[in-house]
Amino acid sequence: MKLARIGAPGAERPVVSGADGTWRELAPLLGGADLTPATLATALAATDTDALPEVSGAPERFGPPLAAIGKIVCIGLNYRQHAAETGAEVPGEPIVFLKTPDTVVGPDDEVLIPRASVRTDYEVELAVVIGREARYLPDAASAAACVAGYAVSNDVSEREFQLERGGQWDKGKNCETFNPLGPWLLTADEVPDPQALGLRLWVNGELRQDGGTHDMIFGVHEIVRYLSHFMTLRPGDVINTGTPAGVALGSPDTPYLRPGDVMEVEIDGLGRQRQTLGKA
Amino acid sequence: MKLARIGAPGAERPVVSGADGTWRELAPLLGGADLTPATLATALAATDTDALPEVSGAPERFGPPLAAIGKIVCIGLNYRQHAAETGAEVPGEPIVFLKTPDTVVGPDDEVLIPRASVRTDYEVELAVVIGREARYLPDAASAAACVAGYAVSNDVSEREFQLERGGQWDKGKNCETFNPLGPWLLTADEVPDPQALGLRLWVNGELRQDGGTHDMIFGVHEIVRYLSHFMTLRPGDVINTGTPAGVALGSPDTPYLRPGDVMEVEIDGLGRQRQTLGKA
Repeated sequence: MKLARIGAPGAERPVVSGADGTWRELAPLLGGADLTPATLATALAATDTDALPEVSGAPERFGPPLAAIGKIVCIGLNYRQHAAETGAEVPGEPIVFLKTPDTVVGPDDEVLIPRASVRTDYEVELAVVIGREARYLPDAASAAACVAGYAVSNDVSEREFQLERGGQWDKGKNCETFNPLGPWLLTADEVPDPQALGLRLWVNGELRQDGGTHDMIFGVHEIVRYLSHFMTLRPGDVINTGTPAGVALGSPDTPYLRPGDVMEVEIDGLGRQRQTLGKA
Repeated sequence: MKLARIGAPGAERPVVSGADGTWRELAPLLGGADLTPATLATALAATDTDALPEVSGAPERFGPPLAAIGKIVCIGLNYRQHAAETGAEVPGEPIVFLKTPDTVVGPDDEVLIPRASVRTDYEVELAVVIGREARYLPDAASAAACVAGYAVSNDVSEREFQLERGGQWDKGKNCETFNPLGPWLLTADEVPDPQALGLRLWVNGELRQDGGTHDMIFGVHEIVRYLSHFMTLRPGDVINTGTPAGVALGSPDTPYLRPGDVMEVEIDGLGRQRQTLGKA
């Protein structure tokens, strides 16, 4: 099952695509409410979605697949080849930083280069959406039970802000529009192995990242288990699980993003994003 | 004017204390709504609060003074003496990290020591609450206009998680209950000089921190201006502006927190907190 939100920015409504692959209105099932952490469990429990009213026409715009996200936890340097390209050691345990939920935009919305930016970069990432509270989990199996599903995330990053402006990465990760998310949330039951997904990112049609989640240093379930010992994960929380090799930071020959550039971002089964870069 | 929320955890209701110093029900002014980023402007614009119904009896429990906080931005090593005690250089520009809003508890709620913690520490901080969107602000005066008010914050920190478990501070800053906030939000008009406030913190009755906001490296308005060039600050966002000297991290003779310990936390005019430490 795919869960999404369509419509104009700030006026999205929830939709679902079930067995027959047709986009249908989800609001009737949520008592008219939006798809948020508070209604996520109801949406996930939906069985007979094919009885819901069809969306008329093709969805005009996908927004972020979840509204009112509580927190976004990010894992740094979590692909072996990406750690190598940035000159970093392979981490001994997950590196954790945060993005604020108000950085989230829809999968095809404009991404703004910050005014003083000289090194805005892209990162295709597998986003994990939490469906059940995760707190001091004992093992990977209990972590797997807390995963609601998966989505495409672009962890846009300003490398000078992140690395050369005072010591903590968050400064380069939280500029407005820096987290395109979606187009949809694919429920975990349709992702038999989250460590077998291909991830790709293009800039102006040129393939820059072409990786697979098999290259993750810490897998999805281990990340959820690990994080639950440092913070409580709640329904609707999102985890950006790290990016494969190919970012601009990783190669002196790869240019950083400029206004007018187009990013396309794709993960197997999770859909495709397309963002044009603008100026803040 | 003081804005607060009283009642049982998760069932708080908004209250206000205006000219006559009496706590009064604020919900009638907010159309029955809670005090959130969405209603903050209405609350701040209140003039004749003395006409609102009095709270019957003394407030039984203060919750966090604001519900549905969007983000909590934290400034590290922002007091000269604290930077010195931790052996760090005085930063050339603000160090920025994040706490997630779900770490917030009321000012007198229990604080839980994480299960694997060996170095849970305290940090009295002046919290700034944003009242107006702050985006690429040109100067301190425009930043001042974005400040709604101030509150007491305890930026509880696990130092091993923060400093020795993989490179980013957020890992030791986001454990559940790690951000007692309140008891109230004092509006900015009643804080003529935010750089002239005394901050104090006691553990088991022993004074551990006894500082003043005059010792800040980057003052409140400069912090708001600075941050607005890296992220958009929105109404209801909170900034923890750093802690003065005296934390356990700063002295080999000062013990870290243990279950049963009691923290008391105070800032001039902003009230006093009291938390007992428990086990997660």
